[in-house]
Amino acid sequence: MRYEMRLAGSGGQGLVLAGIVLAEAGLMDGNYVVHSQNYGPEARGGNSVSEIIFSDEEIDYPRALGLDLLVALNQRSCSDSLPDMKPEGVIIVDSTPVKKVLWGKVLRTPLQREADHTFQDPRVVNMLALGVLTPFCPPVTEESLVRSITQRMPAAALELSLKAYRAGVAHGHQLQSGTAFHELEDAIEV
Amino acid sequence: MRYEMRLAGSGGQGLVLAGIVLAEAGLMDGNYVVHSQNYGPEARGGNSVSEIIFSDEEIDYPRALGLDLLVALNQRSCSDSLPDMKPEGVIIVDSTPVKKVLWGKVLRTPLQREADHTFQDPRVVNMLALGVLTPFCPPVTEESLVRSITQRMPAAALELSLKAYRAGVAHGHQLQSGTAFHELEDAIEV
Repeated sequence: MRYEMRLAGSGGQGLVLAGIVLAEAGLMDGNYVVHSQNYGPEARGGNSVSEIIFSDEEIDYPRALGLDLLVALNQRSCSDSLPDMKPEGVIIVDSTPVKKVLWGKVLRTPLQREADHTFQDPRVVNMLALGVLTPFCPPVTEESLVRSITQRMPAAALELSLKAYRAGVAHGHQLQSGTAFHELEDAIEV
Repeated sequence: MRYEMRLAGSGGQGLVLAGIVLAEAGLMDGNYVVHSQNYGPEARGGNSVSEIIFSDEEIDYPRALGLDLLVALNQRSCSDSLPDMKPEGVIIVDSTPVKKVLWGKVLRTPLQREADHTFQDPRVVNMLALGVLTPFCPPVTEESLVRSITQRMPAAALELSLKAYRAGVAHGHQLQSGTAFHELEDAIEV
């Protein structure tokens, strides 16, 4: 069993921390995990790419060979990642900035808008993303993610973080069952 | 220019955070950076391995091919890493737990003991390690490391962290110039 995922978005969206939280939750759930964070000199304004590999055995090759899951928070990071997908992989995109996704299994949800408007704090976008992806990511459980968030987040930000995470999980379940506002049939646009 | 380093020690010694701080400092200094964190199911009690690669161009192969610098905080993580060293690479070890190092360029310093006794806080061992390695790690500057620590550490821990970091830097310079208590000639033991 090897499961590969990528979180890709803009510098400042908290994806480094989201990657660590996922990796440590995966460890709690008994996986071997490698977390890789790629920074370019343009990373503050440009893209931040966080890759997490879960496996039931030691990971020799720590580079993603075929992504099972991609969460993309902007158009460029989404387009750049398409060649790295497994054919049956799932893509979750932030539906406001990501308009074009040439892929079969795409789920769209307005992550940054939700953080800005519903939670009045742009920084919780990473917690919302973690929540939404939870039902789609078999190697980690919701319980471990809650524990991992609790261990990693500063005390002052914890309550809001967990609230955003749980709202994300609820929305992820809606996306999974097709009852979310953004229907699956709208997802494939060119 | 490609520069590879590894921080290896026990789970709980804060090497995940130290790796991120180094990676983000390297980014501030204009490098491309990849930071990889390897977790085994035994990682809480076992070893934690954080690898950072700096380059002046995009990094295609994010696995270390030959370490320029290893910081090892326990015996097993030191021994396991020797085959991954570049011939001219430098090893810095915590001299209390690491007794045997079959390597030419070894610098020994009692990192965990210093954290426990001088700083009365075992958690600053990662900041001491960052300080000691600073003079040996050309891709990152002390200024960027201070900025990076300031951005990543929780406010409550910042003052002590910076104090430990700066003490580590001073000690690193002593090690470099051979005036530290642990002399280089003691370093090679079998």
